[in-house]
Amino acid sequence: MIAMDACCSPLAREPLSEEQSVELAKLFKAMADPVRLRLLSLIASHAGGEACVCDLTDAFDLTGPTISHHLKVLRESGLITGERRGTWVYYRVHPEVLARLSAVLVPGDAAAAEVVSA
Amino acid sequence: MIAMDACCSPLAREPLSEEQSVELAKLFKAMADPVRLRLLSLIASHAGGEACVCDLTDAFDLTGPTISHHLKVLRESGLITGERRGTWVYYRVHPEVLARLSAVLVPGDAAAAEVVSA
Repeated sequence: MIAMDACCSPLAREPLSEEQSVELAKLFKAMADPVRLRLLSLIASHAGGEACVCDLTDAFDLTGPTISHHLKVLRESGLITGERRGTWVYYRVHPEVLARLSAVLVPGDAAAAEVVSA
Repeated sequence: MIAMDACCSPLAREPLSEEQSVELAKLFKAMADPVRLRLLSLIASHAGGEACVCDLTDAFDLTGPTISHHLKVLRESGLITGERRGTWVYYRVHPEVLARLSAVLVPGDAAAAEVVSA
């Protein structure tokens, strides 16, 4: 998983290092799929900030194993965590990972404004 | 290219539609590669907000055609534009595309704060 504390200035402010770009590319790869993006948004926007598979399957015309596979990719990337409680695994996003990705993509003008205000 | 005007609320605020997720996944796929991420950051952070291939090749131990291929993927995704002037093609990022991606990834707390302040 990416060392998010160390990563990264907005890419419009300074070039990413090779190491940073390798770590970030893994996260973007995990998000480079429509089903995984919808799963991520369903989990992140669900009441209480968490969702179980039982909350997620109705949104898709996909089998349980396929959804589980996509959830596994999201977990392995570090974008979400899963915690078993009773029958179900409950998923949450890692808000700090989303926040860092969001910050990396802030475009030039906003990145410059951030420097000025710092 | 994605209809960025219509897309998207922060994914922590409401689930993405199927159509939105398909369009966003294309952009994340274009960024799901370390070389393309570094190219994007080199272009976005370059003096004047633009860079030609002549500014980019030294950062990589890659052939010209390989770099051109990655630039083509970035162009076709809509993340960058290229404009020929004289000998070189000059590349710029689309700041509004980066801004929208950044806004989609804003995590739960920040998304909620945005609603409150709106």
